[in-house]
Amino acid sequence: MSKVAVIMGSNSDMPVMQDAIDILTEFKIDIEVDIVSAHRTPEKLFDFSKNAHKRGVSVIIAGAGGAAHLPGMVASLSPLPIIGVPVKSSNSIDGWDSVLSILQMPGGVPVATVALNGAKNAGILAAQIIGASNPEVLNKIIAYKQGLKQKVEQAAKDIK
Amino acid sequence: MSKVAVIMGSNSDMPVMQDAIDILTEFKIDIEVDIVSAHRTPEKLFDFSKNAHKRGVSVIIAGAGGAAHLPGMVASLSPLPIIGVPVKSSNSIDGWDSVLSILQMPGGVPVATVALNGAKNAGILAAQIIGASNPEVLNKIIAYKQGLKQKVEQAAKDIK
Amino acid sequence: MSKVAVIMGSNSDMPVMQDAIDILTEFKIDIEVDIVSAHRTPEKLFDFSKNAHKRGVSVIIAGAGGAAHLPGMVASLSPLPIIGVPVKSSNSIDGWDSVLSILQMPGGVPVATVALNGAKNAGILAAQIIGASNPEVLNKIIAYKQGLKQKVEQAAKDIK
Amino acid sequence: MSKVAVIMGSNSDMPVMQDAIDILTEFKIDIEVDIVSAHRTPEKLFDFSKNAHKRGVSVIIAGAGGAAHLPGMVASLSPLPIIGVPVKSSNSIDGWDSVLSILQMPGGVPVATVALNGAKNAGILAAQIIGASNPEVLNKIIAYKQGLKQKVEQAAKDIK
Amino acid sequence: MSKVAVIMGSNSDMPVMQDAIDILTEFKIDIEVDIVSAHRTPEKLFDFSKNAHKRGVSVIIAGAGGAAHLPGMVASLSPLPIIGVPVKSSNSIDGWDSVLSILQMPGGVPVATVALNGAKNAGILAAQIIGASNPEVLNKIIAYKQGLKQKVEQAAKDIK
Amino acid sequence: MSKVAVIMGSNSDMPVMQDAIDILTEFKIDIEVDIVSAHRTPEKLFDFSKNAHKRGVSVIIAGAGGAAHLPGMVASLSPLPIIGVPVKSSNSIDGWDSVLSILQMPGGVPVATVALNGAKNAGILAAQIIGASNPEVLNKIIAYKQGLKQKVEQAAKDIK
Amino acid sequence: MSKVAVIMGSNSDMPVMQDAIDILTEFKIDIEVDIVSAHRTPEKLFDFSKNAHKRGVSVIIAGAGGAAHLPGMVASLSPLPIIGVPVKSSNSIDGWDSVLSILQMPGGVPVATVALNGAKNAGILAAQIIGASNPEVLNKIIAYKQGLKQKVEQAAKDIK
Amino acid sequence: MSKVAVIMGSNSDMPVMQDAIDILTEFKIDIEVDIVSAHRTPEKLFDFSKNAHKRGVSVIIAGAGGAAHLPGMVASLSPLPIIGVPVKSSNSIDGWDSVLSILQMPGGVPVATVALNGAKNAGILAAQIIGASNPEVLNKIIAYKQGLKQKVEQAAKDIK
Repeated sequence: MSKVAVIMGSNSDMPVMQDAIDILTEFKIDIEVDIVSAHRTPEKLFDFSKNAHKRGVSVIIAGAGGAAHLPGMVASLSPLPIIGVPVKSSNSIDGWDSVLSILQMPGGVPVATVALNGAKNAGILAAQIIGASNPEVLNKIIAYKQGLKQKVEQAAKDIK
Repeated sequence: MSKVAVIMGSNSDMPVMQDAIDILTEFKIDIEVDIVSAHRTPEKLFDFSKNAHKRGVSVIIAGAGGAAHLPGMVASLSPLPIIGVPVKSSNSIDGWDSVLSILQMPGGVPVATVALNGAKNAGILAAQIIGASNPEVLNKIIAYKQGLKQKVEQAAKDIK
Repeated sequence: MSKVAVIMGSNSDMPVMQDAIDILTEFKIDIEVDIVSAHRTPEKLFDFSKNAHKRGVSVIIAGAGGAAHLPGMVASLSPLPIIGVPVKSSNSIDGWDSVLSILQMPGGVPVATVALNGAKNAGILAAQIIGASNPEVLNKIIAYKQGLKQKVEQAAKDIK
Repeated sequence: MSKVAVIMGSNSDMPVMQDAIDILTEFKIDIEVDIVSAHRTPEKLFDFSKNAHKRGVSVIIAGAGGAAHLPGMVASLSPLPIIGVPVKSSNSIDGWDSVLSILQMPGGVPVATVALNGAKNAGILAAQIIGASNPEVLNKIIAYKQGLKQKVEQAAKDIK
Repeated sequence: MSKVAVIMGSNSDMPVMQDAIDILTEFKIDIEVDIVSAHRTPEKLFDFSKNAHKRGVSVIIAGAGGAAHLPGMVASLSPLPIIGVPVKSSNSIDGWDSVLSILQMPGGVPVATVALNGAKNAGILAAQIIGASNPEVLNKIIAYKQGLKQKVEQAAKDIK
Repeated sequence: MSKVAVIMGSNSDMPVMQDAIDILTEFKIDIEVDIVSAHRTPEKLFDFSKNAHKRGVSVIIAGAGGAAHLPGMVASLSPLPIIGVPVKSSNSIDGWDSVLSILQMPGGVPVATVALNGAKNAGILAAQIIGASNPEVLNKIIAYKQGLKQKVEQAAKDIK
Repeated sequence: MSKVAVIMGSNSDMPVMQDAIDILTEFKIDIEVDIVSAHRTPEKLFDFSKNAHKRGVSVIIAGAGGAAHLPGMVASLSPLPIIGVPVKSSNSIDGWDSVLSILQMPGGVPVATVALNGAKNAGILAAQIIGASNPEVLNKIIAYKQGLKQKVEQAAKDIK
Repeated sequence: MSKVAVIMGSNSDMPVMQDAIDILTEFKIDIEVDIVSAHRTPEKLFDFSKNAHKRGVSVIIAGAGGAAHLPGMVASLSPLPIIGVPVKSSNSIDGWDSVLSILQMPGGVPVATVALNGAKNAGILAAQIIGASNPEVLNKIIAYKQGLKQKVEQAAKDIK
């Protein structure tokens, strides 16, 4: 079955990126997790990006902060859909740096960007991408959305 | 085979969104194109979003400007991966409004956001999503990236 | 008599939205309170918005954070004046996302936007809207403004 | 019947504010139009704001650019609902100055803010405010929204 | 001798505005302090602004936060030089609202704006304005600047 | 009588700064005009700033764009009130660079900042500073403001 | 002698980057020019960056727009000082994307960033870096600065 | 051997600037440290900047916050390469003021700007500048980068 790789530029990104791991685990989708720094381990970035699709990875989630080049560089090297998670790191300028560094990719090399610190949504989006060709996963998404609705309905009851 | 729906909030978004249509046509991926306005045709939004996956659409590209609610509302109603294209409309505040309205989705309901006016990349991302489970399309992506490289190499020769 | 509906996208918005409830209670205006999520309960959003004016609601206050689509989608579906409260949620990009997602509505579908976290002003504005055709409420507004003045005058005395 | 006052800080705001006049005329709502500058005619501002509700005005639309104090100062002096239109004037810093000067009113003194240059929506909002207590105007709003839908449907047909 | 009026929109601005009072006291310049709210005590604003120059005030320092209209409205009504202090209030959007509401005054009605929360500099600037025609005060400014230099030189020694 | 110096960082700032010269000429206030670049003629900056008050200059208006250091450096070296005009130069980032470089001066060294490209207001502010101790100039300011009012009243008549 | 490499992400950056080439030519410093795209020619990026210092290049100037990863990725792979030029490309969000993508590099991997479109300054900075160990080039810099001063002095004469 | 000067506008910048001192010490590069305030000790600024290159300094690192004029003024007066560190001081507007005041230097006078609070990178960049003509230092940089890689690889092992 399809596998999702969850990578990040630094272990300091783990508290944010854990949300992607958790939701994919909840969806029972296989994952691999690694630290790949565009700026400090560029060779690993190359190896990882050029080979991920050859070993069964179908979606890559990449999180990074500041001048966040990891998602875009993976997108440069891999034919797979890449989901970028802008991480609001310390010394970030309110998160704008990571958001714009990931979002504003040039024509030809897209990164599917989610909200600032939105690793949970990155996980769901990865599941949706798999679900686009896998009815079983699609049904899990449908059920998940149903669950969201029920939580809101319960909260609505509680405030009344 | 998989189909991609390309929708937009207004016919004034067409000059931007045409790039998505063109690249998907180049990749020989089936598309359907429609105008669906979150704010002016909410019932159509519902019908479209709830049923697209039932008729063979596997990815939806939605472009909108200003307070751009179309991609997020489609994401609310469809289990498919939704790609959002922020369009820099007239009277936009430099595009920030459409970027933030599409990108900053709450946990549970992701939109895969691309760059401002980045419809071409939306099309490529849709192809990558299909390619994640379709080796033929994956190979087209690999060939496309090879073509990008050659164009740069030619440009590099030209300036020398 | 006229009723004001106060809705919000999530129960986490309640600490902000309570200010609207409090001021409307102070003005003795009937209210109904509910949680309606554009992204997680879209069907409820439809039902609520299409029917509110039929059961005596004359103004709707809608608060939401991040990519805040609730006020605009209610405005899409209801003929009533809609007041939008941008909520500064966690992971917001300094509140800009909710402000712009609510304010920058396209031509044809206005949302009366108040300040970031400005639920109190949303309540006062709702009262002013009712007061526009109801002399009793108008007089309450006049008295309320008189009270604001007296508080400033007292504070001015205190610092002297 | 209710009347809407449309005022602006300078005659240079007229090209933007004309949209409010046009839509209110289309809705057959009585209007009065004036130039009232918070900074250059403060006495007129006082007279206008203190007396508008006494001569049958029920909603005031105020447009201004730059450090736009007109809507907020009218709101300070009048008990009526005030709709603020941020105008993108020359030398504006991309419109941010007028948006923030109008939107971010302190607790107690709301301004119902619409989008940058959104005078058309200000007119529709004024009509909705009147419609909140006037079924005839409410029905015009419902019909207007129906018209919006039909235009989108026609545009959707045209692109197919 | 010349007097400086220090006014603010709310007593919550006092912790910031105290810096202006302190530095003017240090320069032995007469001051008067008051709370004048543009939005809550507009009549007092008129009275204050129209008469300050008649009772010996030669400079007015006005501090306010959010949609900060106080400095600009005083400038509208008084012929004196007005110094505006943008205060970073709670619920401010990072201070941008007060900065732009005070700085971006239209042609004809200047406000001498200082840095966000820069009340100390407002006091010094008021002293400089008086010093422009008063050699005694000018000399105090020269001495004050000499003192700044000595503090830096001492700090430079300390770190060596 | 008092004199106002109008300086700018480059002759490319002249089209903006001319407005200050014009209004001061209209007020019949003596001016001197010069180009002083903080970055290209630092020695001249020193000479100018240290000596202006010794030859009868009582206010300095300094305009500059981009990383605009001229007003702040003059303020560092002169005891006079310094008015800073942020100029929106080519390659400016929408004017934010010059605004923030001039406005956000540290405690101890104020610059009286006016709006982006607001040289006219800089001229009026300089006149107000002189008028603070010169009744004749004060009366010109009062008359000038009266003239502003009449222009608005005329414009108001014209649109009716 | 030392050589400066001037690279850019696309031939569309050439009109901006030409300024760096021109000033280095004026300083008679050897240059090599190439197009190296981080996103489209990642292998060339690797080869270029890993080897430049081995063939006598001592400074690298890299210009790119949007999500501008080129300067940072070269910095990741080369031990040389890297100067980054943010280019304001079409579809840029006012240049903020390229500025922040280049400036906000993580600890360990600096990029010497210059102003938006500041290729001329990049060239001068490269010369200064060479001049730091080369008295002949240092003297050229001193002479260049002298020339800047004379141009300003001439302009000052012209306006008098 | 080459020396690096590390200066800052205030001793309050020391906690940030210490990172530059530490990394240069680690590289065994000679440093001198001083406090030089553009706004409070302009004469010292002149002396320092005009003479640094005469006593063996080959790179200057200058840190400052708010309207940060120190790096640019040193660049105006010294022929050496100047590295600017934007410091996020209290009352800064999120750091934008110091970033733009340092980055957006006019043509002719570059400052090599690093990230907000990026003093560590300033130190590394200074070492790289020295390394551009000093093979021993160049090798230290290469070794340093190797160390970065190993830390990431260790972190990657730890999370598996």
